[in-house]
Amino acid sequence: MVNVGILGATGAVGQRFVQLLADHPWFSLTTLTASDRSAGKTYGSVVNWRLDSPFPDSVNDLVVSPTTVDAVKDCDIVFSALPAEIATTLESEIADAGVGVFSNASSHRMATDVPLMIAEVNPEHAALIDIQKKNHNRDGFIVTNPNCSTIMLATALAPLMQFPFKSIQVATLQAISGAGFDGVPAFGIYDNVIPYIGSEEEKIAREANKILGTFNGAKITDAPFTVSASCNRVAVIDGHTLNVWIDLAATPAEVVEAFKSWQPPFSGLPTQPAKTVQYLEQTDRPQPRLDRNRGNGMTVSVGRVRDGIRFVAMGHNTIRGAAGASVLNAELLHTKKYF
Amino acid sequence: MVNVGILGATGAVGQRFVQLLADHPWFSLTTLTASDRSAGKTYGSVVNWRLDSPFPDSVNDLVVSPTTVDAVKDCDIVFSALPAEIATTLESEIADAGVGVFSNASSHRMATDVPLMIAEVNPEHAALIDIQKKNHNRDGFIVTNPNCSTIMLATALAPLMQFPFKSIQVATLQAISGAGFDGVPAFGIYDNVIPYIGSEEEKIAREANKILGTFNGAKITDAPFTVSASCNRVAVIDGHTLNVWIDLAATPAEVVEAFKSWQPPFSGLPTQPAKTVQYLEQTDRPQPRLDRNRGNGMTVSVGRVRDGIRFVAMGHNTIRGAAGASVLNAELLHTKKYF
Amino acid sequence: MVNVGILGATGAVGQRFVQLLADHPWFSLTTLTASDRSAGKTYGSVVNWRLDSPFPDSVNDLVVSPTTVDAVKDCDIVFSALPAEIATTLESEIADAGVGVFSNASSHRMATDVPLMIAEVNPEHAALIDIQKKNHNRDGFIVTNPNCSTIMLATALAPLMQFPFKSIQVATLQAISGAGFDGVPAFGIYDNVIPYIGSEEEKIAREANKILGTFNGAKITDAPFTVSASCNRVAVIDGHTLNVWIDLAATPAEVVEAFKSWQPPFSGLPTQPAKTVQYLEQTDRPQPRLDRNRGNGMTVSVGRVRDGIRFVAMGHNTIRGAAGASVLNAELLHTKKYF
Amino acid sequence: MVNVGILGATGAVGQRFVQLLADHPWFSLTTLTASDRSAGKTYGSVVNWRLDSPFPDSVNDLVVSPTTVDAVKDCDIVFSALPAEIATTLESEIADAGVGVFSNASSHRMATDVPLMIAEVNPEHAALIDIQKKNHNRDGFIVTNPNCSTIMLATALAPLMQFPFKSIQVATLQAISGAGFDGVPAFGIYDNVIPYIGSEEEKIAREANKILGTFNGAKITDAPFTVSASCNRVAVIDGHTLNVWIDLAATPAEVVEAFKSWQPPFSGLPTQPAKTVQYLEQTDRPQPRLDRNRGNGMTVSVGRVRDGIRFVAMGHNTIRGAAGASVLNAELLHTKKYF
Repeated sequence: MVNVGILGATGAVGQRFVQLLADHPWFSLTTLTASDRSAGKTYGSVVNWRLDSPFPDSVNDLVVSPTTVDAVKDCDIVFSALPAEIATTLESEIADAGVGVFSNASSHRMATDVPLMIAEVNPEHAALIDIQKKNHNRDGFIVTNPNCSTIMLATALAPLMQFPFKSIQVATLQAISGAGFDGVPAFGIYDNVIPYIGSEEEKIAREANKILGTFNGAKITDAPFTVSASCNRVAVIDGHTLNVWIDLAATPAEVVEAFKSWQPPFSGLPTQPAKTVQYLEQTDRPQPRLDRNRGNGMTVSVGRVRDGIRFVAMGHNTIRGAAGASVLNAELLHTKKYF
Repeated sequence: MVNVGILGATGAVGQRFVQLLADHPWFSLTTLTASDRSAGKTYGSVVNWRLDSPFPDSVNDLVVSPTTVDAVKDCDIVFSALPAEIATTLESEIADAGVGVFSNASSHRMATDVPLMIAEVNPEHAALIDIQKKNHNRDGFIVTNPNCSTIMLATALAPLMQFPFKSIQVATLQAISGAGFDGVPAFGIYDNVIPYIGSEEEKIAREANKILGTFNGAKITDAPFTVSASCNRVAVIDGHTLNVWIDLAATPAEVVEAFKSWQPPFSGLPTQPAKTVQYLEQTDRPQPRLDRNRGNGMTVSVGRVRDGIRFVAMGHNTIRGAAGASVLNAELLHTKKYF
Repeated sequence: MVNVGILGATGAVGQRFVQLLADHPWFSLTTLTASDRSAGKTYGSVVNWRLDSPFPDSVNDLVVSPTTVDAVKDCDIVFSALPAEIATTLESEIADAGVGVFSNASSHRMATDVPLMIAEVNPEHAALIDIQKKNHNRDGFIVTNPNCSTIMLATALAPLMQFPFKSIQVATLQAISGAGFDGVPAFGIYDNVIPYIGSEEEKIAREANKILGTFNGAKITDAPFTVSASCNRVAVIDGHTLNVWIDLAATPAEVVEAFKSWQPPFSGLPTQPAKTVQYLEQTDRPQPRLDRNRGNGMTVSVGRVRDGIRFVAMGHNTIRGAAGASVLNAELLHTKKYF
Repeated sequence: MVNVGILGATGAVGQRFVQLLADHPWFSLTTLTASDRSAGKTYGSVVNWRLDSPFPDSVNDLVVSPTTVDAVKDCDIVFSALPAEIATTLESEIADAGVGVFSNASSHRMATDVPLMIAEVNPEHAALIDIQKKNHNRDGFIVTNPNCSTIMLATALAPLMQFPFKSIQVATLQAISGAGFDGVPAFGIYDNVIPYIGSEEEKIAREANKILGTFNGAKITDAPFTVSASCNRVAVIDGHTLNVWIDLAATPAEVVEAFKSWQPPFSGLPTQPAKTVQYLEQTDRPQPRLDRNRGNGMTVSVGRVRDGIRFVAMGHNTIRGAAGASVLNAELLHTKKYF
């Protein structure tokens, strides 16, 4: 078994990591870190479990560690649910200490030698790890997963890369869990829409270009299209919905066929869903409450393909869009013997 | 005083008409129609008042009439909140009977001799009434107001018509009141987004082209741009939010200036807001709950102008987007002596 | 395997029955009935699946039957999710035809020879079936489960029957799914509380008295306490929350101990949860979104025991409070050889 | 004009004070205090106005003061929206400095020489001010208004004090604004009920006893009944709903008559509603979204009187339950020449 730790195990994404790793067939959860005031106590005694799936008893008595390099230096890999301001330095130090870091933080996503990976979409970018290890002379490494909205967009675009296109417009209707448990006050979002999410639109544009860019063995060349995003917070608990316009030269029928026939380059990993991209026939789907749990929250559902080309994409933002994507990246790299 | 009636006075839009007309300075509410089972009873005894503004006592004892031509033939004008299937025939019969019909129904919006009007945006289209009277040899007339989402889009575009542009993409986040009091089951929309509203996307495209089209004294030539809409129902009570992309050759600063400086061609009508289009400086506005009541619900708020050009527009869907728009059309035509 | 049918298989409770029975170890789902316009089509083609659990493929091609006696006469038992007005006659006819009916409808709950059963709470009432068969000279039978709020109350009271008490006050905060998929318009309940649910308060009072009443082999004597209920609809999807006051002579600590130590008279049935009544230590629990899925929706969570005696009880209204309770009744009676 | 200040003018209650005082006929808003980082800036530049009523331009350029005694020593009276931990000391110091303090904070509510007042319910308690001035040898004074839930209960009980009763049970369904703008995270309350509000139940019990207690010229003797409360937070923006049980010896018809005929001991104050207690005939009212704005948010609506005696009471928690109650207290004491 691979010994794994979770950095920041008590927050919205941290609890999702715990949920996904508590009974993982390959990974053994040995270390959970949190703030200093929780360190030394059992996870069960400090966590305020707020997921609607049952609390995994197996981690109840795990003693929480402080969020430091020392705490995780004996782990083979760690999953990071840290805020960016802490992640920037600490994740680098942990990689330098020889540990593999799978990070959900935005800090290192755009670094030229750090993979920004969606396992089924751009697995070849994993080779950046070798370059990163040389550049930093480190035994460990950092692999990042994209922003939660970017993952839905880039995954839905993967089947469409066979068509040429130059520009994308995307309006996002994002769930409140994307801001963490306490990030969105009820008074602000209830009976309301907030048409702004700080720096989200910029992240979607630049991250999509890197993920779908080409890797020549040395560096990544950004994908040659522009993304213009308009982001909204809506009163949904989990599940980001996207309205996408893409100027590609294909008929709606051809796009539907592309969605239906696309297969990821591998299959059978523990956290991988039966369908990474699922096309729904109904005229009014996908919908977050009804479709976010497809593939245990790892499927990106698409539908409503119309001329334009317009379509709708939706996925679970804290599973497919965060913790689950990170765990799947680790599973893929384990099969590739990176640890 | 002008004697006015309301067709379908007990529904979501009908109640808004009552709210706006109960104490109107020019219009005297003489007739309220509803279904046969309500006819003959007092309005106060049959209406289930569901607006958060107080019920206007002045209409409490008004006896409800059946929804027929006879019931309104002594009115100078009527406001129609009828469903399209009933409106198609009945509104024509009422116009033929010599009464002016201001309709919120979609039935006659696209007829070549029926004005599809937003008072401040295309008042010159009112002249279609004379053509309509000839065509149908009628003393009355039908004037329609657009679909509730179209009104927000077309009003926000009015200040931008000075710039050339060819295509628009718009994602709508529409309130539940747009489907009537009972149109959206809570189980369907709660913790959810429904990315489909029947025939809404088609209406927005064709209606925007007519409203912003040019009238040469004989007919309207559609505006030369395409509108590609993607419509969503969200868990908001009142207020439609739009994310708009428009390919015009101007800087964001020039667009903001256009929004700030635009003035409608007239002012001072009773239902007209101080600002038809209000530009909001804050980075996270407009928001439905905070901004829908600007100008007593008659102001379209715009903001977040960014390159693209992208911007956000929002307005109250049952006031600016329905009953209020219709009443303002009537006020304008009264000043033009159409009745 | 026992051949089972579901009467009214497309509604909110009907879909829960399908979810619970699709892969049941003892019961084989052979018949699904719905309205005449669905009859003859496959279930997958007519159902609008609105649960967030995946649609069970095993029932996709089952051809829907009309809701008639003939359609189910070859079933060993049927589960009824019919509206009361249809259930009254049809359920009797089906029982007369020799089929066991497990009904969620209110029609026959108060009949003196029909068990109103919560499997773990009053299993001895099952013996009413033999009396019912004699009275009606029927080979089949009707067994009912209580109203969804009553189940939470009566189940939470079971551990407290060891203490004498005379009166109960209960305020309910009921989920929208309790009124069916389309029963509560979003415009009515959003940002709101509706402090009235038709005839609900009367049902809770009389049903609790029957369930917790004593059976002497011939008839049931109502439990000697009064229940005064005040029912509210709140903006929650699933999960009824109850605030209970009970005038029993015990300390809060003794009540907590009673909740913790109570065990149902049997265990191990397929749909039975590990804990029928679960006491939660946290000061702010139970909460519907966090606790409704305990025991796969079959656990009634209790907490906040304070002097008064006051406590809070909560359970999943369409599983523990409806379909699941009915299935568990059937499992118990199957072990007792009633079919 | 009376010069007034507001302590803590940017929060949920502070903004309500600003809304109610911006155009007050007797009171002139001269001072707004907030945190040190806002001090010295204009109110318009620091406040994030989050009420759906328009921002009052008259206060836009008022320069914010720090929250200190010096800042308000020239005011005739101040309204306090401070958190209890700050209010305890500061309000006393301000009263000692000769200023009248009308406080919404809980700090001094239970002090034996501080009036805990609902203007229409226990105006005679104002006489405690003279005792307070002597006790503390101060020229100023502190007058408090009750907790937001207590106000709804005590106001609804006022018409019933003519009947003897000994015990009350009350379940509250409280709005999110009661916890301040940021007090309730959306993730916690959405699709949920939180059956616990810290120390709320204790406040309701003790405050109701003091408000409805008798004043003999020297001290207040608590009302001789017990209140057992069970408090819930629900997904409502504004408006607290109460389910009340009261063991009084009267018929529902007599209770309805008491609600309808009760009149407060005075009338005509600027903030006083036409009806302090309004009885609603409809079977499903009061409802927060439809009834909270009655009397500009100052009316407590009651309904659903049934045997038990059970009834429902509802009022706007930040107007009738906080800022409005405090302003009305000040208006009453101004007519009594306390300042």
